[in-house]
Amino acid sequence: MKINIIGNGNVATHLGKALWGKADVNNVNSRTLENLNVDADISIISVSDNAIEEVADRIPPMPGIVAHTSGSVPMDILKGKHERCGVFYPLQTFSKDVELDYAKIPFFIEASDSLSEKKLLELAESISCNVRLANSEERKALHIASVFACNFTNHLWHISDTLLKENGFTFGMILPLLEETLRKVSAVSPFEAQTGPARRNDTKVTEAHSRLLSAHPQYQEIYNLLTTSISNSYKCHQ
Amino acid sequence: MKINIIGNGNVATHLGKALWGKADVNNVNSRTLENLNVDADISIISVSDNAIEEVADRIPPMPGIVAHTSGSVPMDILKGKHERCGVFYPLQTFSKDVELDYAKIPFFIEASDSLSEKKLLELAESISCNVRLANSEERKALHIASVFACNFTNHLWHISDTLLKENGFTFGMILPLLEETLRKVSAVSPFEAQTGPARRNDTKVTEAHSRLLSAHPQYQEIYNLLTTSISNSYKCHQ
Repeated sequence: MKINIIGNGNVATHLGKALWGKADVNNVNSRTLENLNVDADISIISVSDNAIEEVADRIPPMPGIVAHTSGSVPMDILKGKHERCGVFYPLQTFSKDVELDYAKIPFFIEASDSLSEKKLLELAESISCNVRLANSEERKALHIASVFACNFTNHLWHISDTLLKENGFTFGMILPLLEETLRKVSAVSPFEAQTGPARRNDTKVTEAHSRLLSAHPQYQEIYNLLTTSISNSYKCHQ
Repeated sequence: MKINIIGNGNVATHLGKALWGKADVNNVNSRTLENLNVDADISIISVSDNAIEEVADRIPPMPGIVAHTSGSVPMDILKGKHERCGVFYPLQTFSKDVELDYAKIPFFIEASDSLSEKKLLELAESISCNVRLANSEERKALHIASVFACNFTNHLWHISDTLLKENGFTFGMILPLLEETLRKVSAVSPFEAQTGPARRNDTKVTEAHSRLLSAHPQYQEIYNLLTTSISNSYKCHQ
């Protein structure tokens, strides 16, 4: 297969590496479109969400498929401009210079027609053991779920880091606890894995914690809301 | 060293296993105090937070140290009842039947006097490579930090799990992403590791997400608050 990868960000770089040797890969500059192979089977636009439409507009009509890699941008943005189009969405966070086990990364595919779908599935399956279809609505749900699971989680770790530092501790001290917390949810559901004072509805502890956070009104608000949400989740199950 | 471990919960069980062969360990029933060695160097009360005081009251005065293992209970609760007392707090979440690498678990020690401190440090260092002192105030901060980092994180994973299931996906699909998110914060600070639409201040995406959560008002409120908190964190740094 002949593939254009349009863009130079982390996703584009990792896709290029993952496909290296499995397809005939062209790295295309998203501004100049230099190096674009107009005979490619698949052209993957891997740029920031806001730039996708503009890049798609500049790509000339081609016989191959034009796809993007975004979780939150609908496929429709490519339709009209490109007859055969699709989405090639890897559910992973990519960092520069960090090797990943691509076989484990889930890929979610959407396509304008069954032939394009088959081609995009084939390409994803050449990288990953974990490929399935997801339409634009489902992909949006996946994206929200990953915002909760990763972006928000990371922010809570930042809050934790801040509180630790204020007391002369380091975030490194809490890493074994984080590792074990993550290990648990690969064995049982997060609902079953929940521990802590909010789960036990131990208001003596949660109220004391909340008071101690008065120097950080935003953290206090987050503490109170998440404590209430945890308590509510288990109320219906007692 | 002769050690009483009073209690049968997960912490008590794991401490017993970790100390096995390194000290002369007695497993004591917290209700009957059967098997209590009154000549022990250290008696560790490892029961639920609300039960610590009551168990401490029933233990007869002894020449050895009486300590508890709780993050949120002050040492003072043992004072008056027991001349030599302390805290032996492992910062980890313990599950039944899950083996842990005890050497990595951070232990935080507090004691009523320097001799007891020395003994408790010695005991912790026989298990772990990561032992330090923390007074009751510092331990409370550690506990709040771990609530944010683990209990709240786990709840966000539960929300993520719920949203995934509603759309025909499974939580397992997001695990590679969680693993990579955790790996990142062992390399760079959570503040630097932050990604996602809130960090980019991409209000088009965050407002669309928020609208899509209208069927779950509690999740929507959490989404909005954490999005605002992330945006605020980076506003001052732009």
